[in-house]
Amino acid sequence: MTQTENGSPVITPVLLGGGSGTRLWPVSRKSYPKQFSQLVGAQSLFQASALRVSGPGFAPPVIVTGDPFRFIVTEQLARIEQAPQAILIEPEGRNTGPAVLAAALWLAQDDPGQLMLVAPSDHVIPDTAAFRAAVATAAPRAQAGDMVTFGIPPTRPETGYGYLELQPGARADAASPQPLAGFVEKPDAARAARMLQDERFLWNAGIFLMRADTAIAAFRTHAPVLHDAVTGALAGARSDLGFTRLDPGAWADVPDISIDYAIMEKADNLVVMPYPHGWSDLGSWDAVWNADGPDAQGNVCSDRAHAIDCADTLLRSEGTGIALVGIGLRDIVAVAMPDAVLVAHKSQAQRVKEAVGALAARGVAQADAFPRVHRPWGWFECLVTGGRFQVKRIVVNPGAALSLQSHHHRAEHWIVVEGTAEVTVDGAVQLVSENQSVYVPLGARHRLHNPGKLPMVLIEVQTGAYLGEDDIIRYEDVYARD
Amino acid sequence: MTQTENGSPVITPVLLGGGSGTRLWPVSRKSYPKQFSQLVGAQSLFQASALRVSGPGFAPPVIVTGDPFRFIVTEQLARIEQAPQAILIEPEGRNTGPAVLAAALWLAQDDPGQLMLVAPSDHVIPDTAAFRAAVATAAPRAQAGDMVTFGIPPTRPETGYGYLELQPGARADAASPQPLAGFVEKPDAARAARMLQDERFLWNAGIFLMRADTAIAAFRTHAPVLHDAVTGALAGARSDLGFTRLDPGAWADVPDISIDYAIMEKADNLVVMPYPHGWSDLGSWDAVWNADGPDAQGNVCSDRAHAIDCADTLLRSEGTGIALVGIGLRDIVAVAMPDAVLVAHKSQAQRVKEAVGALAARGVAQADAFPRVHRPWGWFECLVTGGRFQVKRIVVNPGAALSLQSHHHRAEHWIVVEGTAEVTVDGAVQLVSENQSVYVPLGARHRLHNPGKLPMVLIEVQTGAYLGEDDIIRYEDVYARD
Repeated sequence: MTQTENGSPVITPVLLGGGSGTRLWPVSRKSYPKQFSQLVGAQSLFQASALRVSGPGFAPPVIVTGDPFRFIVTEQLARIEQAPQAILIEPEGRNTGPAVLAAALWLAQDDPGQLMLVAPSDHVIPDTAAFRAAVATAAPRAQAGDMVTFGIPPTRPETGYGYLELQPGARADAASPQPLAGFVEKPDAARAARMLQDERFLWNAGIFLMRADTAIAAFRTHAPVLHDAVTGALAGARSDLGFTRLDPGAWADVPDISIDYAIMEKADNLVVMPYPHGWSDLGSWDAVWNADGPDAQGNVCSDRAHAIDCADTLLRSEGTGIALVGIGLRDIVAVAMPDAVLVAHKSQAQRVKEAVGALAARGVAQADAFPRVHRPWGWFECLVTGGRFQVKRIVVNPGAALSLQSHHHRAEHWIVVEGTAEVTVDGAVQLVSENQSVYVPLGARHRLHNPGKLPMVLIEVQTGAYLGEDDIIRYEDVYARD
Repeated sequence: MTQTENGSPVITPVLLGGGSGTRLWPVSRKSYPKQFSQLVGAQSLFQASALRVSGPGFAPPVIVTGDPFRFIVTEQLARIEQAPQAILIEPEGRNTGPAVLAAALWLAQDDPGQLMLVAPSDHVIPDTAAFRAAVATAAPRAQAGDMVTFGIPPTRPETGYGYLELQPGARADAASPQPLAGFVEKPDAARAARMLQDERFLWNAGIFLMRADTAIAAFRTHAPVLHDAVTGALAGARSDLGFTRLDPGAWADVPDISIDYAIMEKADNLVVMPYPHGWSDLGSWDAVWNADGPDAQGNVCSDRAHAIDCADTLLRSEGTGIALVGIGLRDIVAVAMPDAVLVAHKSQAQRVKEAVGALAARGVAQADAFPRVHRPWGWFECLVTGGRFQVKRIVVNPGAALSLQSHHHRAEHWIVVEGTAEVTVDGAVQLVSENQSVYVPLGARHRLHNPGKLPMVLIEVQTGAYLGEDDIIRYEDVYARD
């Protein structure tokens, strides 16, 4: 087992980054979920989660995420100069149970006794020092073979969380692991109100500390079908550009189940580490408002947002070019993006998910799609669409390349506005630098590559009768896409 | 005096289109005021105002507007196939008094007895037939030398309007002109409440019917300084591309004063035509909500706006790509544009003007500027701005041309995406059609002309260290701009 210089065990963070919540729409969407957004503070929630469990005493993290997010993960980690041990790609989201077991099995390949700290990547925990101290305090119990859950003292009769019930005599205000009587599933309002009055109940934050072999044994005992399927998915995993892709065939047999249901509610080696130093899962916009530190009038205003005679209101402008003005508002959440605007009463903020479902049912693209589309090589966004034309901004990461491709229905004009592009058109290669342009005729095989050290930005003007993303024939792709 | 076939006098509409209200920000801004916006119904308020007073019995209108709006006026009239008699350009806005006199003097050149119907171009009058009937009923009194004002029965204790006081015994519910006791300036709340209970008081709608020579005589008698200055400004006017530009030198001496203050409050040949058939000046967003016909829940939702459990709420998406969602709102106004979003409590909607002032004080461009910039030749909008680049969509009207110009600090790439452009670069002329591009190097003298029958659309990609609109040297300009 790996140890630090002072003899305490090294802990490997296991960050779960595959969720796709829509409760913070329009910032969080299926194609760009909230953990990757900068909702509170200077980093994304994912970045803040990675930094919280980095430094002395922590090994580089293991990330479990979905295929659509893998390049967002690498890009966001690179920006905070964190290198993961592994990025495990789930072929499909199967809730937290399979994700945790996959990480445990991966870690156990080298060191079955490895301590792992499982944490969602979309929570806010403001006091990093207090959190690290709580983890360190709990580590010996995990080291000894217990599964440690972290319990948050409730501050409201929340019906959206599971609860942890301490054994009689245990102390919810203790600074050490306490014995657990059991898990309580999401309660109704009456039970939530009773639990709020009883200090033996804590919120289940979904954060766990345990040895890899402890977790594996629990899954083998309490969820053998899941255990065998995930074991098969890891055995059949293949390495792809630094990602570990779990085997889709085996994964198809993996049940969709949370770690709570799969093992925690059945295990008897559980203890609770109370954590009273601040926590939020940012489950709705009123939680963001609360976590972001309202001013004396109760308002939280982003840059470019202007509140006039407002109170207890959240105003967020999420576009560099959007001025947002609120006048005479009470308890309102307003979030403005270039393609979508949400205005909700704060007491109804938990209905955002329902609203997104209604949008999706009406075929509104903004329900799921994000204006910036992330690709392995960088990202693009549509600037304007006309009857027979479309203009995009395309940003290609240093060293990255788009696939060799052609289109049946459109020609493309490329104007490089930042950096240098290496452009291949029908076999001819040329360097195109800032303020130079290239024309790609309809049908021509072309490739775009950024050979430089800085991001390359180009404006693409497409013309043609059909401009859908699916008019693309790929010949070669370093990212192995069809 | 001109007459129709049945002998009744022909009436010339005088439409006042120079205002620049900000009470409906962000749709209405200094550079694109509300009369030109499509706020209620399928036309702009200006277009609806022009159509309301068109057809049998009406001569083509005289428009009085400001220089920045002259091409918006011609474009909007062309789209509804209305040709004006004249478009008078005020060198500076001077309120309604000088505008009305300028129109009267212009009409009196041909026919001093010409009946003119003065009307703002930013009001909503839903019942066109009733309005035309009221005008026809009032015409004989105007023909006889009276000045007819139109009075609206108050529906609330409004403090933002002037009132008309009928003489004792006059009937506010009469369908004929009634004798006037006097004008009441904007009242305080207590007086407005009293007047609401007293049927002798009507709102002053700012609509007047009178002969041109009647108006001129009133100004000569009651506002001689104004009369002489405006007479000089018309005498010195010059014709420019079909516009009549009042002389700026003489105009500098014109007082800034409303027609009410200048003559109406002093004249004794006034009568009131009650008009109870619906009227709104759309003075704030709650008036737009009211005029637009709320549904059973009291909501008004534009295309792309979605209300979930809202009541008495106005949701407007003003961009083709913006999805607007309201959840749990009561009495809220939300207006979303690509560059600006307003969210206000409906009871505070009249404070929008104050909010715009606050934005302007903070140097926020959106306070005054509109995303689409209208020019004599068409319009443009900025699609994206980067550190050293900017992308614009430019639309050039058929037959129109930009000035021959050059730039010190930027090069331009032009890609034609609709129609055909005739492009001149350093003396060389070429036709550029859809899907072709042209490069304009830094310093090159260039001109863009649309020789076709359809609007020409191009995407301009500018690159350079300075991209301000003021980096332009004009050599020749058909619109005589500096």
